[in-house]
Parts: sequence; structure tokens; C-alpha cells
Amino acid sequence: MNQKGPEVDEFVFPIRVYYEDTDSGGVVYHANYLKFMERARTEWLRSLGFGQERLRRELGVLFTVRRLEVDYHKPAVFDDELIVVTRTAAPRHASLMFDQYVYRYANDALGSEPLCHAEVKVACVNAMTLRPQGLPEQITAELRNVS
Amino acid sequence: MNQKGPEVDEFVFPIRVYYEDTDSGGVVYHANYLKFMERARTEWLRSLGFGQERLRRELGVLFTVRRLEVDYHKPAVFDDELIVVTRTAAPRHASLMFDQYVYRYANDALGSEPLCHAEVKVACVNAMTLRPQGLPEQITAELRNVS
Amino acid sequence: MNQKGPEVDEFVFPIRVYYEDTDSGGVVYHANYLKFMERARTEWLRSLGFGQERLRRELGVLFTVRRLEVDYHKPAVFDDELIVVTRTAAPRHASLMFDQYVYRYANDALGSEPLCHAEVKVACVNAMTLRPQGLPEQITAELRNVS
Amino acid sequence: MNQKGPEVDEFVFPIRVYYEDTDSGGVVYHANYLKFMERARTEWLRSLGFGQERLRRELGVLFTVRRLEVDYHKPAVFDDELIVVTRTAAPRHASLMFDQYVYRYANDALGSEPLCHAEVKVACVNAMTLRPQGLPEQITAELRNVS
Repeated sequence: MNQKGPEVDEFVFPIRVYYEDTDSGGVVYHANYLKFMERARTEWLRSLGFGQERLRRELGVLFTVRRLEVDYHKPAVFDDELIVVTRTAAPRHASLMFDQYVYRYANDALGSEPLCHAEVKVACVNAMTLRPQGLPEQITAELRNVS
Repeated sequence: MNQKGPEVDEFVFPIRVYYEDTDSGGVVYHANYLKFMERARTEWLRSLGFGQERLRRELGVLFTVRRLEVDYHKPAVFDDELIVVTRTAAPRHASLMFDQYVYRYANDALGSEPLCHAEVKVACVNAMTLRPQGLPEQITAELRNVS
Repeated sequence: MNQKGPEVDEFVFPIRVYYEDTDSGGVVYHANYLKFMERARTEWLRSLGFGQERLRRELGVLFTVRRLEVDYHKPAVFDDELIVVTRTAAPRHASLMFDQYVYRYANDALGSEPLCHAEVKVACVNAMTLRPQGLPEQITAELRNVS
Repeated sequence: MNQKGPEVDEFVFPIRVYYEDTDSGGVVYHANYLKFMERARTEWLRSLGFGQERLRRELGVLFTVRRLEVDYHKPAVFDDELIVVTRTAAPRHASLMFDQYVYRYANDALGSEPLCHAEVKVACVNAMTLRPQGLPEQITAELRNVS
């Protein structure tokens, strides 16, 4: 996690694996990593001052997943403590690109390799019409600050 | 299932257990039986002519779970074929009571004992305000016919 | 929450509501409260020194939900901060009884009424055979201490 | 769907959208399309004679998702009838590649555009060790037949 470059922000979010997240193969069900990653994106936005209420009510927008690329390297298992590391590239006109890594956290350290990695494209849409919309200036300004 | 009495309707709905439904204990995750039972109630309503669109748009109501009692007897496992048997009592003013049983289906027969049983109270609410509302006359009339 | 009696332990656990927890009715999907409650029970056990690894590997047991009674009073919505309050009665031979309340937490206070309440019976089973088994003495001793 | 080429098999599987699949944005939650696609892959395997029991017990293998690319074009909504179209390329040594499309089905026809498309790489692993393993000869023989 020391490759952080000039255009990138990084956000760290912990997740505990419960029974609900696993399947009878004994591992975290593949679709559930996407839930973990969305929780991390939501908390990243909140940490910048953009809680969901403010996004929807004040700025009139929602974010919606448009594209995913996910690589599953090693499985997480029941009761694991995970860390989702989220990096954001410079914002585009109407979308955000995220690089998200899920690591196992054990013995006070992250695993050397991520269990799972995703590139996620999230589009900004009008909260009423669900049509694509440019990112609110408040958000792009804030993102320029952090990156 | 031959105890069907005069006030009761019975509806049979099949479910296949996929990985998404199981947990790392090797069995169906306890909360997921409630999903199976809601699918069965939804299809029971559709079989009576009350698809969700008609309920919401034409009759202006939604159904929402108000109370549950669930007994878990034996676990279902990955790849099981299940049958949800749904019985309905005579409708009340603003709610419906369901008795729902989940059976394993194997070798062309239901298991002798249900894996899971639930009594479910579902309230009728206004689709806009989400406030309790009397059941539409069309529904109570239809339920009197089938019971 | 000041009715805590001599046989009762109380444990407080926060939950944030994400998109994954909601449905198109605009509220938390009814089955998902059961996930919140299981997370709280798991963390309560961990707080007493009984993490899942120790339960399974060292003590050879699992806990499995045997019976639920759930009352849904008011809906939680997207982005809510919830608090699950968990109380435990004196342990039985082979099961634990939980009283669990889900409150909305807003403006630094719990709501005056719970959104949802459940009584949950959890059975102790052998981790290999999944057959019912008496609670390990370490657990009953610990529960006598906290209650 | 008439572009079926010589190396490709095609399998059609229907899905009904229930409340459990949606979120408070009013649409199907993005991770849940992955569940729909896994149900379709499982039923495709079953249609070829490779039910999960046979895979695990007789052939000693499991399939596990290794990589996903998903494009979300338009949202599915509550109560939609969907069709998952699954195409398979010629099998590799230890993995299968799937092309999966989710269409809305209405008025006796598929929508002209898929709502969602995914390329999915599924690896064959030993059911005990979870280590990668070559596809059983029975499966590759069967796949050569259908393609």
C-alpha cells in the first residue's frame, strides 16, 4: 500500500465475516465481496462529508455501479477480519473509478496479497430520473483536495 | 397435508437451494427460509390474480410482514429441492395470516416432517403512506371463494 | 434499558444500514434484521471470550437457531444507524435464549421504541455431528459471572 | 441470440425478481445479478448431467468463480421476469468461460438489449483441498458434444 500516487486517495475500512457472508463451500460467497466493497465506498463518501442523505436530498444525486472487474485470488472464511482498501482516481465528468482490494487482517497485519481485487465504475445519476448526470461541483472540488 | 379444513387455502411452491442460500455450517442460512416463504406468498397472490403490479398500481396497497414465529426442525442443504406449502386463514380486516411449511422433496415425495414451519402475519398498508389499510374488497372476495 | 434484572446480561452493538439491506419498498428487508441480530449475538459471545474459532476448535460446538419470534414495529431505512440490544437469560442445559431489540440511533439517542424485537432460541450442537449437546461448562460458568 | 457459433453452447434460464433481490433505489441490487447468473450456470451443468452431488461425490470437484467482468446497462425492477442466457466457450484445461446475459422478458419477448452482461471465469478445484484441478474427462467430453 505504499504505491499511492499523486492522483489517488486511499481509504481503509474493516469488515468482519459472519455466517450470512459464507456459503457451504466454507468460504465467503463470491457476490458478497461486492457488498463489502460498496460498504467501503459508502463510508469513504461519508468521510468526505457526502453522507447518503446529503447526496440525495441536497445534491439530488445517487451513485450506481456501471461496470465491475473482479479477480478472486484466495478465499476469505467465516470469522475473518478483513480490510477493504479503496483508492479513487481523479473524477471523470459523470463517474468515479475505484480500485478496491480486500485483505485478510490477522496478527496485527494485512496479508501480503489481497484476497480479492476489483475495479469499479460508479456513475452519478439524478436521484429522481436515474439518468446520468455530471458530478456535483462540491464533490469534484473535495476530490481534488484529497488527491 | 390432508388436514385442509374449510377456512383454509393451500398453495405449493418449489424452491431449489443454491450456494447463495447456504452458509459455512453446510446448511441453509436461517434467515433465508424467510425469503423462500415470501417468494411462495408472492406467487400465491399472483395465482389468485393479484400480481404485485396490480396490488400497487390498481389497488394501491402493499403487504408487509408484521410478525413471525419460526421453528427450525431440520436443516436443508445445498442443492436440495424444497417445497413450500402455504395455507391461509380467513382474512382479517387489515391483515393476512399464513401458515407455511418447508419440506424437502426427494424421490418423488415430500419428507414426512417439515424442515421448517412459520406463522406469518402480513399487514396491508397503503402503497404511498405505508399506513395500515383495510384489505381491498377484491382480495377478501377472492379469498372467500378459494377457502 | 434500565430494566436489567439479576438473570440478565445486556450487550449493545451498532449496525449501519447499507443498500444491500434494503428493498424496493424503501425499507430494510424483513429477513435482514435476523442477520443484524446474529451479528450481535456473535459479537456478544466474542466479548465473553468465545470467538467462533474457540467454540468450534477448542470446545467442539456450534450454535444454531432453533426458534424465532419476531415483531416488526417500524421500518428502518437506508443509511440508518441502528443499535441492537441483546439480553440473555440464564443458560439452559443445551440452549440459550436471547431477547433482542433493534433501535434507531439518531441525534445521540436511541429511539423511544424499538423498530423490531425478537426472542431467539439458539441450540448448542456438536460441531461435527450437528447433534444437540449440553453447553460447555466454560460457557455456563462465564454466563453465571456476567448475569 | 442467433449468433450461436460452433464452439458455443447456449442455455436459457428464467428468474423472477422478488423483494429480496431489490434495494431502496427501486432496482435489483447490483451484486444480486451474480446470484442469478450462478443459478443459471448450476442449472446448465445439471442439464448436462452434472448435478452438484455428482460433481462433488463422484467426480470430486467443485467450481469456483475466479474472475468476473460485469456491465450494467439498464436496471431490472421488482416483479420483473428475467431470462439469463448462458453461453460457454470450449473448455480449457482447468476452467470454464461463460458469457452470460440478463434480459427482461415481457409481452412474450426478450428485451432487445440485455440489462446486464458478464464474462465469468470459473475454475475447477478439488472438492477436498480446494486446489486447482483439471476438468474431469466426463465433463470435457460432454462439452465437446454440445458445442
